[in-house]
Amino acid sequence: MKEIRPINWTGSRLELLDQTRLPHEQVTVNISDYRVAAAAITDMRVRGAPAIGVTAAYAMVLAAAEFGSLRQAGSQIAAARPTAVNLGWAVRRMLRVAEAEPDPGSILPKLEAEARRIQAEDEEINRRIGEHGRVLMPQDGEGVLTHCNTGALATSAFGTALGVIRAGWEKGGRFRVYNTETRPWLQGARLTSWEFQQLGIPATLIADSAAGMMMLNGDISCVITGADRIAANGDTANKIGTYALSVLAHENGIPFYIAAPTSTVDLSVTDGSGIKIEERPQHEVTAYGGMPVAPSGTVAYNPAFDVTPNRYITAIVTEAAVCRPPFDDSLRRAVDAA
Amino acid sequence: MKEIRPINWTGSRLELLDQTRLPHEQVTVNISDYRVAAAAITDMRVRGAPAIGVTAAYAMVLAAAEFGSLRQAGSQIAAARPTAVNLGWAVRRMLRVAEAEPDPGSILPKLEAEARRIQAEDEEINRRIGEHGRVLMPQDGEGVLTHCNTGALATSAFGTALGVIRAGWEKGGRFRVYNTETRPWLQGARLTSWEFQQLGIPATLIADSAAGMMMLNGDISCVITGADRIAANGDTANKIGTYALSVLAHENGIPFYIAAPTSTVDLSVTDGSGIKIEERPQHEVTAYGGMPVAPSGTVAYNPAFDVTPNRYITAIVTEAAVCRPPFDDSLRRAVDAA
Repeated sequence: MKEIRPINWTGSRLELLDQTRLPHEQVTVNISDYRVAAAAITDMRVRGAPAIGVTAAYAMVLAAAEFGSLRQAGSQIAAARPTAVNLGWAVRRMLRVAEAEPDPGSILPKLEAEARRIQAEDEEINRRIGEHGRVLMPQDGEGVLTHCNTGALATSAFGTALGVIRAGWEKGGRFRVYNTETRPWLQGARLTSWEFQQLGIPATLIADSAAGMMMLNGDISCVITGADRIAANGDTANKIGTYALSVLAHENGIPFYIAAPTSTVDLSVTDGSGIKIEERPQHEVTAYGGMPVAPSGTVAYNPAFDVTPNRYITAIVTEAAVCRPPFDDSLRRAVDAA
Repeated sequence: MKEIRPINWTGSRLELLDQTRLPHEQVTVNISDYRVAAAAITDMRVRGAPAIGVTAAYAMVLAAAEFGSLRQAGSQIAAARPTAVNLGWAVRRMLRVAEAEPDPGSILPKLEAEARRIQAEDEEINRRIGEHGRVLMPQDGEGVLTHCNTGALATSAFGTALGVIRAGWEKGGRFRVYNTETRPWLQGARLTSWEFQQLGIPATLIADSAAGMMMLNGDISCVITGADRIAANGDTANKIGTYALSVLAHENGIPFYIAAPTSTVDLSVTDGSGIKIEERPQHEVTAYGGMPVAPSGTVAYNPAFDVTPNRYITAIVTEAAVCRPPFDDSLRRAVDAA
């Protein structure tokens, strides 16, 4: 299948496939300043928890090349978006490498090597998630539903939840694939539909609101989504609407899976109440592509994520293992094994 | 409060406020051919179960003025959209009037009077629904959530579920109002936000996907929606996404109300499995306002309605009474009393 790689490091600058322009245009943004990289994360030119982790790592390389304060740059990069744990995780990993290097002249090449390693590891991890998860995919003709975008575009390559679907298809599974459009930012309609087209996997797009009825009608045999942060007890922050899908799956006796690397598991957070939820600008709801949808003056509330309580999650697929409840135990073992 | 009346009969033609153009433009469409009226229903220039019932009644007047076959015109008008029962209900009511009139020269004025009566009754019924329902609205500062558009634009005037919210505010209630955008057609963002602005009721717009999280977080104390057809057992067909909201309300211990005239109750249908669900064009999901959202070639599934099983419904507010479970009994009594 055609490989999509949204993040490319040239050796001196970062090239990002601008996800605000997809699917209409494939535009690459060239970045050589860590502040611009942080802004690209905030503005969602690159998004998806693993992908912004990788971007943060290269942003740290750019910061080091400036010979500025790496700690200060790290704080700024980690603050670009608040919910996904991968940002802070990547920044901390880079800082550890910098601070362990006694020779100042060697910091930059060490950081570059580490960022490349994070990127390469991410692809390898995603392929392992796909391997573990593909056995959970439904029988031929049955339906799997996914939400938001968790494919190559959200990662270095291959993807997490979308990678599991891809792995199932690569092994010959011929289940049906449904993806939500994922308002307000339309990651599903714009990015996931595009990725499935590139991969040659037939998929049907639905409004977020149609998922419940399809579960009730027996069209969906399992749901799989990604994650932006997973608490120690398995409570999972992910794209707004994930909680609703998990409740609807639970009510209809349908398994609900999360697919994410162990770097998304934040053992320092006991449960979902400790996860900060990003609130994004109102105009993402009141307009689309600059065109107003609601009348001028409309007030909107735009939480970007929600938290799915662990009781609605059947399993969390990581690169180390398929974690089942009780998640406190299974997630800790997966993190230790990774 | 400012009155919105989307349907106006001039004595010889029908004037419809074109709901495909709101909120950006207030355009009136003048219709003097029943076929054009049926097409306006299909194309959703007028929508909302009560409003399309009233439009169907005037379409029958236009058909009678043509001295064509009223039965044949009636079949065509009733087929304009399949789910809302009010269409067939209005057509049958008009046919009964025509067939009871022995003098052919008197049919047209009799039909016109009947259509005007249906329209006037609808407003009166909605005000009674508001009177019955307003006591169900939450305390000041608590939140009520509504879905799609059920206001004046969906009726002759005043509205059903939105009318209940309005009635509560008119009596001095100062609860918070949230409305979903209601993809794919955006009735909530385009029409409900506009109506609340016209009425001077502060309301906050949310993506459909955000409703679940807000219920989990305690921001919503009750949910109220309209209905397109209610089966004898209370199973309710309404805008896609209603089922999901009902399950989320149920899971979070939040009352879920339906507001609808008894003309929406179809005692000839035992339960929800007997209700035909309209599937609308794919481009409503893959594009917005002519602008593509998904990549060219994307396949979409676009059911316009879903059916909420009666077990998720706390009460159905009609003009006759607030009906509680068991609905078989309470709905039949309301229909008899109306």
